[in-house]
Order: sequence, then C-alpha cells, then structure tokens
Amino acid sequence: MNVRSEFGPPSGRLVSAGEKKSDPVRISLIRYNENDLEEKEVKTIEECFLPADPRLVTWINIDGVEDPAVIEKIAIHFDIHRLVLEDMLNTDQRPKTDDYADYLFIVLKSLRYDEKEGKVNGEQVSLVFGPNYVLSLRERESDSFNPVKDRLKNPKSLMRQSGSDYLAYALMDAIVDNYFVMFEKIGEEIEDLEEELIAEPTVKILENIHDLKRTLIFLRKSVWPVREVIANLEKLDPPRITRSTQIYLRDVYDHTVRVLETIEGYHDLISGMLDIYLSSVSNRLNEVMKVLTIIATIFIPITFLTGVFGMNFRNMGVLDLPFAFPGSLILMACVAGFLLIYFRKKRCI
Amino acid sequence: MNVRSEFGPPSGRLVSAGEKKSDPVRISLIRYNENDLEEKEVKTIEECFLPADPRLVTWINIDGVEDPAVIEKIAIHFDIHRLVLEDMLNTDQRPKTDDYADYLFIVLKSLRYDEKEGKVNGEQVSLVFGPNYVLSLRERESDSFNPVKDRLKNPKSLMRQSGSDYLAYALMDAIVDNYFVMFEKIGEEIEDLEEELIAEPTVKILENIHDLKRTLIFLRKSVWPVREVIANLEKLDPPRITRSTQIYLRDVYDHTVRVLETIEGYHDLISGMLDIYLSSVSNRLNEVMKVLTIIATIFIPITFLTGVFGMNFRNMGVLDLPFAFPGSLILMACVAGFLLIYFRKKRCI
Amino acid sequence: MNVRSEFGPPSGRLVSAGEKKSDPVRISLIRYNENDLEEKEVKTIEECFLPADPRLVTWINIDGVEDPAVIEKIAIHFDIHRLVLEDMLNTDQRPKTDDYADYLFIVLKSLRYDEKEGKVNGEQVSLVFGPNYVLSLRERESDSFNPVKDRLKNPKSLMRQSGSDYLAYALMDAIVDNYFVMFEKIGEEIEDLEEELIAEPTVKILENIHDLKRTLIFLRKSVWPVREVIANLEKLDPPRITRSTQIYLRDVYDHTVRVLETIEGYHDLISGMLDIYLSSVSNRLNEVMKVLTIIATIFIPITFLTGVFGMNFRNMGVLDLPFAFPGSLILMACVAGFLLIYFRKKRCI
Amino acid sequence: MNVRSEFGPPSGRLVSAGEKKSDPVRISLIRYNENDLEEKEVKTIEECFLPADPRLVTWINIDGVEDPAVIEKIAIHFDIHRLVLEDMLNTDQRPKTDDYADYLFIVLKSLRYDEKEGKVNGEQVSLVFGPNYVLSLRERESDSFNPVKDRLKNPKSLMRQSGSDYLAYALMDAIVDNYFVMFEKIGEEIEDLEEELIAEPTVKILENIHDLKRTLIFLRKSVWPVREVIANLEKLDPPRITRSTQIYLRDVYDHTVRVLETIEGYHDLISGMLDIYLSSVSNRLNEVMKVLTIIATIFIPITFLTGVFGMNFRNMGVLDLPFAFPGSLILMACVAGFLLIYFRKKRCI
Amino acid sequence: MNVRSEFGPPSGRLVSAGEKKSDPVRISLIRYNENDLEEKEVKTIEECFLPADPRLVTWINIDGVEDPAVIEKIAIHFDIHRLVLEDMLNTDQRPKTDDYADYLFIVLKSLRYDEKEGKVNGEQVSLVFGPNYVLSLRERESDSFNPVKDRLKNPKSLMRQSGSDYLAYALMDAIVDNYFVMFEKIGEEIEDLEEELIAEPTVKILENIHDLKRTLIFLRKSVWPVREVIANLEKLDPPRITRSTQIYLRDVYDHTVRVLETIEGYHDLISGMLDIYLSSVSNRLNEVMKVLTIIATIFIPITFLTGVFGMNFRNMGVLDLPFAFPGSLILMACVAGFLLIYFRKKRCI
Repeated sequence: MNVRSEFGPPSGRLVSAGEKKSDPVRISLIRYNENDLEEKEVKTIEECFLPADPRLVTWINIDGVEDPAVIEKIAIHFDIHRLVLEDMLNTDQRPKTDDYADYLFIVLKSLRYDEKEGKVNGEQVSLVFGPNYVLSLRERESDSFNPVKDRLKNPKSLMRQSGSDYLAYALMDAIVDNYFVMFEKIGEEIEDLEEELIAEPTVKILENIHDLKRTLIFLRKSVWPVREVIANLEKLDPPRITRSTQIYLRDVYDHTVRVLETIEGYHDLISGMLDIYLSSVSNRLNEVMKVLTIIATIFIPITFLTGVFGMNFRNMGVLDLPFAFPGSLILMACVAGFLLIYFRKKRCI
Repeated sequence: MNVRSEFGPPSGRLVSAGEKKSDPVRISLIRYNENDLEEKEVKTIEECFLPADPRLVTWINIDGVEDPAVIEKIAIHFDIHRLVLEDMLNTDQRPKTDDYADYLFIVLKSLRYDEKEGKVNGEQVSLVFGPNYVLSLRERESDSFNPVKDRLKNPKSLMRQSGSDYLAYALMDAIVDNYFVMFEKIGEEIEDLEEELIAEPTVKILENIHDLKRTLIFLRKSVWPVREVIANLEKLDPPRITRSTQIYLRDVYDHTVRVLETIEGYHDLISGMLDIYLSSVSNRLNEVMKVLTIIATIFIPITFLTGVFGMNFRNMGVLDLPFAFPGSLILMACVAGFLLIYFRKKRCI
Repeated sequence: MNVRSEFGPPSGRLVSAGEKKSDPVRISLIRYNENDLEEKEVKTIEECFLPADPRLVTWINIDGVEDPAVIEKIAIHFDIHRLVLEDMLNTDQRPKTDDYADYLFIVLKSLRYDEKEGKVNGEQVSLVFGPNYVLSLRERESDSFNPVKDRLKNPKSLMRQSGSDYLAYALMDAIVDNYFVMFEKIGEEIEDLEEELIAEPTVKILENIHDLKRTLIFLRKSVWPVREVIANLEKLDPPRITRSTQIYLRDVYDHTVRVLETIEGYHDLISGMLDIYLSSVSNRLNEVMKVLTIIATIFIPITFLTGVFGMNFRNMGVLDLPFAFPGSLILMACVAGFLLIYFRKKRCI
Repeated sequence: MNVRSEFGPPSGRLVSAGEKKSDPVRISLIRYNENDLEEKEVKTIEECFLPADPRLVTWINIDGVEDPAVIEKIAIHFDIHRLVLEDMLNTDQRPKTDDYADYLFIVLKSLRYDEKEGKVNGEQVSLVFGPNYVLSLRERESDSFNPVKDRLKNPKSLMRQSGSDYLAYALMDAIVDNYFVMFEKIGEEIEDLEEELIAEPTVKILENIHDLKRTLIFLRKSVWPVREVIANLEKLDPPRITRSTQIYLRDVYDHTVRVLETIEGYHDLISGMLDIYLSSVSNRLNEVMKVLTIIATIFIPITFLTGVFGMNFRNMGVLDLPFAFPGSLILMACVAGFLLIYFRKKRCI
Repeated sequence: MNVRSEFGPPSGRLVSAGEKKSDPVRISLIRYNENDLEEKEVKTIEECFLPADPRLVTWINIDGVEDPAVIEKIAIHFDIHRLVLEDMLNTDQRPKTDDYADYLFIVLKSLRYDEKEGKVNGEQVSLVFGPNYVLSLRERESDSFNPVKDRLKNPKSLMRQSGSDYLAYALMDAIVDNYFVMFEKIGEEIEDLEEELIAEPTVKILENIHDLKRTLIFLRKSVWPVREVIANLEKLDPPRITRSTQIYLRDVYDHTVRVLETIEGYHDLISGMLDIYLSSVSNRLNEVMKVLTIIATIFIPITFLTGVFGMNFRNMGVLDLPFAFPGSLILMACVAGFLLIYFRKKRCI
C-alpha cells in the first residue's frame, strides 16, 4: 500500500496535483430559470463568461484539474481568492467550507469503491457558489452529477424554481447519496470476509481485515468533516441559504450522520472479527495441543511397558509365562484406556 | 448475518421500503376531548378527513407502510412537507425530531426482542403532531399503543383532559416502556450465557457473546438519539408543549437515560465475559500442557532406563544379577516418583 | 449473579417495588427551630399533618416503601406531583434532582458494602424539601441519619439555626460520608486479593477480580449522577439555598469528586491486577513448557542411543568391546550434559 | 502496597490526620514591604497576631498539622470559615481553590520522589491569602519555600514591590518547579527499567512497571486539578490578582501543562514497555518450543528406526547384512538431516 | 533512548538551555516596505536598533540561543516582558501564544526528521511581533525561512505590500510547510517497516515500531498546540491581524489540521502493524506446534509397535511368521498414514 499518497503531499503552490492523470478537461455550462434551460459543452472557458443575468442561475461544471490556466481564468472572472484557487487545484484538501463574503467555497470528497483493488478512491469536489452561480470542479469526469442534470430537465422541479443555493444543495446531496452505494459494497465484502473467517482463519484474512479497517479509517476521515460542512451551511442566514433550502440541508445532514453511524457500525463489526480471528487461532493451538497430548498420553506409557518387556535381564520369569505376550498387550490396552478415560473425565484433554 | 440490512440501503425516493412485507395497511381514527371519545377502524384514508374541530384531539394511527398513496393523501390533507413524507416511508431513519413551524415530526424506534432468533428487531414509528392532531405511523401492526388506548377510555384520565402534546408524550412513553421489557429478556439471556461460559467455554459461546455485543451496539445506536429527541421536545415552549407535559417528558427522558445506562452496564458485562472466555481458553491450554508434561516427565526418563537395560552389550553384568529385574522396576518407580515430587514442589507442574 | 435485578425492572405504576421486603414502615417526625426541638415516632402518617408553622422546620422521615398509601397521603398533604410519588416508590431511580417550583425532589443512593456476599447494596433515598419542611424516604431502616439527629440535639449547632436547606444538606452529607466507609472496606478487599494473586493466580481470583470490577462499575453509575445533583443544587439562588448552605454544598461536592477519583483509582488497580493475572498465567505456561523441554531435550537423544545399542544387527562389533556398557553410559551422560549446557547458554530453556 | 492510605480515609471532623507524625509544629512570621523585611521564628501563634498594617504584607508559614489548636486560633484571628479549617487539617484534599469573598483558599500537593522506596510522597500545602496576608500550611517541614525566602531578601526583587497575590504566586511556582525535579528522577528510573527489560524480562520488572504506572496515575490525580486551580486564579479580577501577577500565573499554568504532558509521555512509554514485556515473554515461549520441536523432530523418527532394527522377528535378513549397522547409522543421520533441512526451509522451526 | 531530554529539564532562570551547542549567534536585519528592501547580516545586535520608521516593517532574525545577552538587549530595546525572555531562552516550551498588549509572543516547534538516527528533532522558534516589527529566534541556523526571504525580494509580492502580521503569518506557514516534508519521510519509513514485517517478524521490528510510535506521540505533542496557537491568532481583531491576513491564517490552520490527521492516520497504521506482529508471532508458534504434533502423531504410535515387536517374551508366535517383518513395517505405515489422514481431516493438524 502506498502510505504516502493516502496522507498526501505537502501543500503545493498553484501547480495542479493531478498532472499524472491525462484526462482532458471537460467544461459544461448550464443556465436556467423557471422557464428556460440552456445546457452546452464548451471548448474554451471563455465561452462561459457571458454577461451576468440576475434572472438566471449559472452552473459551470469542470471535470479534470490538469489545466490550472482554466481554473485561473474562472477565478479572475468571478473574482475568487487566490487561496481558493490553490485549494481547488490541490486535490488533497479535507472537506471544509470557507465563507468569503461574496461567495462560499465548499470542498467535499466523492468516494467510490473500487471492487477490483478492494479499496476506496476519494476524489475532491470543489464548489464555489455565489448569488447567481455555482462553479463545480471535479478531479475527473464521473456520473455523480447526472441525477441533478436529469432533475433540471423537469421544468416543474423545485430546482428550476429555486436559486443557486438549492443547486448547491442538490450537488452535495448527490455526492452524499453516492456514499450509500459504496457502503452497500463494503457491507457485502465484510459479509464475505466473515463467512471465510468462520470457515478457516488464515493470515490472508487477517490482512484483509486490516485493509478494511484502514479503509474505514480513511472513510471516517473523509466523511467526518462533511458533517461539519453541512452544519455550517445550515446556520447561514437568508438570502445566502433560503429557509426552504435549509430544510433540505438538514436532510443531507441526517444522511451524513447515518453514514457516520454506518462507519462506526462497520468498525465494530471488524473489531469483533479481529477478536474472533485471534480466538480461532488460539483455539486451533488448543486443538493441536490436545491431539499431541492425547497421542502422548496413550502411547508414551505403553511404549514404556514394551521397553520393560524388552529388557534383557536374565531372570525375568514373567517373560516365560504362557500367556505373557497377549497378557501384556491386554495390560497395555487397559493402561491406555484408563489414562484416556481418566483425563477425559477431568476435562483436561 | 445480513450486515447490509442492518445498516440500511441508501435513502429512497418516495418508494416505500416496506414493500416485501405484505401486511395490509390498517388505519384507526380516534377523536376525543374531556367529554367524548370516538374510535373507529377506517377502510379508506378519506374517512379520516373530517372537518377540523378545535375542541377535539384527532389521532390517526396507521399500521403498515406498504401503501405510499395513503401516506401521501394524509400529507396533502395536513399540509406536510415532502421530506417528512420520504422519511416516514423510508423505515431506516435514525430517531430524530424535525421542527416544522406548524407541526413537529418525530421518528422513534420501537424495539422488540425476538427470542427465537436471538436478535432485536427495530421498527420505525413516525409521529407528526400539530395543535389538534397526532398522526402515528408504524411499520407494522403491534400492541405497543394499546395501553394508551386503554387509558383514553377512562374519561377522568389526564390524557382526556389534555391536548395533542400529552397524547404524543403518551405514545413516546409507551415505546420507551417497551424497551424495559426487551432488556429484561436480554438480561436473562446474558445470565444463561454466563452460566454456560463458566461450565465450558466453547466457540459457540464466543459467537453468542459477539452476537449480543452487536445487538447492544445496535440498541445503543437506536436509543442514543431518542434521548436527544426528548431533550429537544422538553425545550419547546408552550403552547406547543404545555408546562405540565414538560414534566412528563422529563420523566420519559429519565427512563431513556436509564435504558442507556443499562446498555452500558450490559456492555461491560459482556466485555468481562470475553475476558473470562479468553482466560478460560488459555487456562485450558495450561491444563492440557500440564497433563502432557506430567506424562512426559514421568515416562520419558524411565523409558530411557528400559532402553538402557534393553541394550545388547555383551558385558552387562548388571543383567545377570539375581534381583536385577524387580530392582530395575523399583529404580524406575523411584525415578518417576522423585521427578513428580520435585517438579510439583517447584510448582512447575 | 442476578443481572436483571441489578439493572432494574421497567418503570412501575405506583406499585411499590419493595413488596417482597416485609419490614414495617417506620415514620418519625421532628420539628425544630433555634429554641425548640420536638422528636417523635408516629404510628399513622396523619399525626404528621400538623398546622404549618413558618417558625419551625418540619422533618418527616419514612423508612420502608411497603405501604404506598402512606406516601400517597403525604403527597396529597404537601401537594406533591404524581411523578415524584412514582419515583419515590420505584426504588431503581438513578440519582437526580427535579425542580418543582414549590419544592425540590432529590434522589440519592445510600451504598453499603455487604462483606459476607462481597457486594454492594444500593438503597434509594428520596428527599423532598420545601421552604419549611424536608421529607425523607429510605428503602429500609438504617442508622445513616443518626449523626444528623445527634447534631440536631445540640441547640447551638448551625443546623438548629438554619432552615430546611441546611437540613437537606446535612442528610446528603451523611449519605456521601457513608461512601468513604464503604470504600475503606473495598480497599481492604483489593489488598487481600492482590496478595492472593501474587501468591498464586487461580481462576477463582480472576472471578473475584471481575466481581470487583462489576461492583466498581455499579458504584460509578450510582455516584456519578450524585455529583451532578449537588452541582445543580449549588447553582440554586436564595432563598431556596442560602449563601451559607451553598458553601457547605460545595464541600459535599468536593467529597463526591474524591469518591469518584477513588473509584477511578480502584478501577486502575484492578485493571493492573488483570494484566498481572494474565502475565502470571502465561508465565506459568512458560515454566511448564520449560520443564517439558528440559526433560525432552535430555532424555530423547539418549533414549535414541539406547535404541541404537539395542538393535539386533549381527555385526555390531561395538557391543563386544570390553568397556562398551559403561562407556555407552558415559557417552549418554556427556550428550545429556552437553545439550543441557548448550541450550541453557543460548538462554532458550 | 497500602491501597487504603493512597485513596484516603473518610473526611474527618477537625481532628488532625497527621497525629502519627511527631514533628513539632514550626511557625515562622515574615512581614515586608518595599523598604522593610522582618522575619522571625515564633514559639506561640499569638506572637503573629500583630496589629494589621496595610503597608506591610504578612506571611505566616506553619509546618506541621499536629496541633489543631494552632490552626484554629489563626482561623479565628483571620475570620476563616470552619470548612477551610477542616480542609487544612485533613491532608487528603484534592487540589482546589475556594473563593470566600474576603480571602482565597488554595490547596496544592507538594510532591517528592522517595528513591529508596521508589514511590512518590504527596504532601498537602494549604494557602489562604487575603488583601495583606498569606497563610501557608505544610504537612511537614521542607525546603520547598526557601527560594521564595531568598528572593524576599533582595529589596529590589519584584516580590518586595508587589502585594500578597505575588507572594501567593511565588509559593505556587516553587511547588510546581519542584515537580520537574521529581520527574527527572522518575525519568531516570524509567530508563533503567527499560534497559533491564531489554536485557531480560522478569516478573520483577513487570511488577516495577506496574508500580510506576500506579505512581503516574497518582501523579496525574495530584497535578490535574492544579491546572484548574491556577486557571481559576488567573480569571480573578484586580485588585485580588493584579494584572502583572496574572502574567506570572499564566507562566505557572504553562509549567503545569508541561508537567501533565510529561506524565502522559511517561504513561505512553510505560504502556510500550508492557507491550514489549508481553512480546518478550511470548517470544521466549516460541524459542523454548522451537528447541523442543527441533529435538523431537530429529530424534523421534530415528529412535523409531532403532526400534525397527531392535525388533525380534526371526526372519529379518536385513540384520545379517555385512554393513547393516553402519548403514543403519548413516540412514538415521540422513533422515535427521533431511527433516532438519526440510522444516528449516519451510521456516517452521 | 534519553527519556529525560525528551521531556525536558525544569524551567531555568534566564540561563540559555542551549549552552552545549557551540554554533555562533547569527543576526540578520531586514527592513522593507512596498518600495524598498534592505537586508543585512549584523555583527552586534546594537546595529539593529535603528530609529523607528512607521513606514517600514523591521524583521530581526536571530539563529542560536547561546548568547543570552543579545536577547536581553533586544528585550530591553523593544520593551519585552522578562517572562517572554525566559521562554525564548528555554528551548523546551510547548507551542503557545501569549498576548501582551503591545506585541504578541508566539512559540512554535520546527520539526526535522533525522533519517540516520531515525528520530525527529524539534527546535524551538520564537516569534515576537508588534505593530511594525517581527523578532524571530531559532535554536540554530536552518534554511526554513529562506522561502520567505525569497518572496520578500519580489516587490510585487503580497508580503511587501502587507504589514508585520503578514510576515509573521509567512514565517509560521514556512514552519508548518516543513512538517509535510518530514511526514513524507516518516511515511516512507513506515512503508519499509511494513514490508519487512510481512517478510519476517523479528524483535528488532517490534522495537522499530515502538520507536515510531514514540516519535508520533512526540509529534502529536508538538503539533497539537500549534493548532490552538493559530486558532487564537485568527480570532484577533484588526489592526493586530488584518482581515486579509486572517484568511491566510485560516489556510495555515487547515494545514495544521491535515498534519494532525496524518499523525492520527500513521498512528492507526502502526497500531495495525503491532496487531499483525503479535498475530504473526502466535501464528509462528502454531506452525511450530503443528510440526511437533505431526512428527509425534506419526512416530510415537509406530515406535510403540517396534517396542511391542522388540519384547522378549518367549511365546510370541507372531515373531516367527514368515512375512512378519515386512508385515509389521506395512502395519506401521498404515497406522501412521491413518493417523495423519484422520487428524488432517479433523483439521486439527
């Protein structure tokens, strides 16, 4: 596992942390109000800099952080602080909300479970929302915002009748909803692991358990501040967040709390599995030792008897008795049987 | 164990999560004041939409969430927010209270211990209460509200003389009181398990202990927010919650705290049982090893002696001595006895 | 152990939880001020209902909760809320203070260590105190209030010159002081257990340690809320709690904190004992295995040698050598000695 | 170990807890201002009761709590509350500060490490300071206040120019500074123990580790409330604590925090040592078992071979072959060597 | 390991704690505003005491604490409190911020990972900043402030246009940024250790794990208060901290939180490694015991058989049978095979 990448490099200086990824930057522009909806993919960011129209909500979505110039141009157009710019390009921020008088800057993590590698990928989603616009920046293209786009197409939807605060809520809601999908998959994996563990505890399973534990720690680290972010947003007064949107934010807040409880629940499950693993290992040792002890308890004493009857003393009258041989075998059987029964009764073996 | 179902699917969109359960939806309507009490089972929800009468408290109880249409009609009639509707139909909410200016929305969990499967079933109970009405929605029919119905029949009861806030309190009280019944049963099971554990620690018991631990974690998760819910209600000002009802809410609050302390107490008991289990297992190992060591300590040295006397050297005068054989046996008995006494004295075996 | 009784039955409905105990209810009435002191045992509760006299402090003490009727009559006379009545009769309340405008209701636990059974018995003490009166209800008769009665007999005592708030303080102080006596006894038991543990770690000691741990958890549960109760009382304004009584309450508060620290200290001691127990057990195993290994390391190789010399090959010239037998014995002694020294040097056995 | 004495007897009633200690009570009186300094040992406490002089700071220091009468006389002279008196004489108070309008009562613990017995002795230091005077009471004579006395002799020192609040600060600072000396000694002991542990883990070391752990728990209990005490003093307004003294109190506060961090650090070191101890013990067991297994793996199979060649069958042609004996020995060597290499390769032994 | 040095000597009295280090004290003076920048190395501190010029920001940086006289002179010139002086010279302060009305005193730790010794060195950095000046004192020369000096050279940089508060921010930012470099190196070491651990768990690795754990505890102790320091600064009102600098401080605050999360993450990794170490050790024991048990289970019974056929009874017809010898060998093979298969099937060995 790459420990370093998980905990992130030092804060960079306006150099995109995403350089290695070669996906091209995709920009889409959506403008809407109750009556109209205009949606287009744009090639150059300049196409988005239309004259402001207070009757329309403008949503610019950018997928990919490879081209700092694009982000910088937007920042200049919307008069966004240099530190926001840096945070957008450094994709290892922790979720947070920064309140700049004119706009709000929100950082969230979009989480996706990669079943092949059995690990969770976290991608940064930055939102900047002002009175009439929402800028969203994702590390790479994904379908996480599609439900929002679909709902926008319905002219009767609440979103079309609301302002940019509701759009921001809808984007956050889409991200948090995705967490549940991920947890369903992690839950399945925990179930599988539990069955394997009961079947046979191997070191491989121990490592899987530790990987899952590490994943959950990563998730807790990613989701915990989201709760705070949404709680902060809820407290904002109108007109920044309207009363009706506040009710919806409370709903997202409840979802986040449930996600965190699920994480804690999984954490407890995994701790229990570790206990069971350790108990199983020591039970195995007990079983092995019991076998050894049974074998030794039965055979060591009677082997001693064969030794006695194998001694070469001249005057061993016992060796000449007629039924000495079968008698000795019977004696051995009795000794073995007695020891076996005796120790079993004492519940020692 | 089904891990996923325990921690819940993602938040649905107005599709009842109870579809698999085929119990029909049962609706009962109760209207009362100090003088009158009217109670009836209704077939269609429309029968409940009587003209408002400020002198009467209306209580509509619905058992079963299979028919979203019923709930939706009620929501429209009482002008209830869409998010409340969603939360009522998604039966995996965590207990909470949402304050909508006109009414309060309360989610609680009704817990029942299924002795056959040895696990706790949690069912969601949603309450909406406004100035003159209480709507209650349970996942399925149960007798948990019967004590409330019985008390309503007594015209001198405080409930008949109070408003909808007291009715809401009484329903919550009935749910919390049921927790105690459940804990009595869990307490019995812990006692049984403890006796079994002392008798013989098996892997089966370990798994039972872990199941109980998981159950307690589930219970803590279910009851902890209830405390908060009731604390929030207590803080509401009249006329929403009258002074006299506040005193009763404080009583329910105390009960919830006691339930939580009981959970913590059980948790400690179970942790202690895990310790005892592990100690027992390692004591067993000690016992087994002691048996092995005693056997080996006695017989290995004397088997060596038989080996000595069984060697085929030509010049072993000792073999020809007259009482060599019985003498050798006595020698072996002495060696074995000495070793046994020596190590026992040193408290090693 | 009876797990259930420890964590209590569900909240009852005005039926005394003390029914099984057959002690008769004893009522004593004390009225005093700076100049006069009147103390009498009364047969019927009605004798206590004297005309109110603002110049006198009235203290009614009831021992025994068998007769709900008595309590109910008092409640009616002093106009006490029904919920207070229920809490007084249900002797499994957690310590708390409820503020009813006219009077304060305080629940405490009187703790007594039963040396014979090695467990702590907690008995509920309920106090109701209003401007001129204190009602105290104990589960059963005890001498815990005797110091207070003795101090009342001294006309120069601060108590005689103070109001009902000081009397309530004195009763709480008497209860908390009793905790120290109990802890002295528990401390002695821990010391004894520690000595036994160092002498020989048995499973019996492990169970005793766990019983003590459970007792401490029970004590923490009983004392922790007492701290809160007293902190709440301290915050009340005159005339309910006078300034001078507040100073004394702070003193009781300090005592409670010390009790809690003692509990934590004992808890740490017991955790340390558990560690030592487990280490001792695994040290024992090491000792046993060392004995086994020494025996096996010495005798298995030389038994092999006897086997070699006991083989029946025809052409074993070695067997015919003149000093072969004593030589073989010397060889075996050397081999055994060498192995013993070798492994001892390597600090393995 | 005497568990009881560590956690203290019940709160006494104006009977000195120091009766067993026979040191005589020593009283010293110091009066000073910017210009004058008068210092004398007094025989009877009455000598200290000089007419109040607002231009002088009076410091009465008493070493020894054997003579309650002395303390009582002071209390009457300075009009000190009875509870303060009790707390001064009961030397098992926890550090605290009580604010009586006219004066402040401060309890601290002076800690000293007794290297011979390897344990920490805590002695109570009580301070009462009013506008012009400071009373200090120590359980027994010590040199902990000497630095303060030395600084007083310098007429240019800040102390001579400040009021009683600065003197109280200086005394507290002297006590806290002593903590660092003690921790240096404990640090040395931990280092020694660590070296011994790595050399050879014995049960003696385990007990030493547990004693140290217990000492640290005792220290935390003693120092933790000191932090709170000083934080409370810092918050007092002038003229009780002047602005300039507040800055110095903040400095003592920082020292206390560093002491607490040192305790936590030592605690972690000791936990680590426990882990290493346990690992060492189980490593030892592994080593012992490896030796046993190597011996058994080599010799049991070849002993079997000697048994085969020692059987008395008539028709064992193999016994008559010319080089059978040396051949059999070579066979045995091969078998032993093969097993040794095989299991070593599999990293099992 | 030197435990004492890690947790520091007692608070000294204006004697530099750095005496043993012989680096000479280096002083540099920088004065700048939007238009001018003057930078020079000075030999004597007096050169820095230029007439105050409110249009310029003065930054005096001192590397080395060997010469208390230098610091004292500065303190007199800038009218700095004696306690600040003491704290600057005692390089074992914990990070803190003290607010003296005229200036702020900030203590931070500069951390550097010494790869050779595998431990972290912490050096104290003290900052004093007033309206127009910043004093910085480092324990020894380092390049940690070079990025700040470089940015100062750019006349268009925000720093040149801002006041002393921004300079103080920049210095703190430089220190916190260095933490990330250090963590990258620690991350690498954890990865290496993890690989070694999976390859083979040795006691050496256990000690390395414990050293890392100790390092992380030290780091947490060093960084945790930094968070508080910066949070305190953020709360200061203009003109001490300007609004625009507050935004940058919030950015440093976020970095500190990320550093702390990284520490927690590493801590969890290391705890997991300890678990894996312990499991590996007990798995090894299991493996060893399995080998022993397999060997014993196979050979002890058949060695018994050779004993039987080696007995010297006269009437053992079996010995005379024609194929008795090969038959007995086949019997032994069968017995051994049966036992092996039997126990393997029962999954015992």
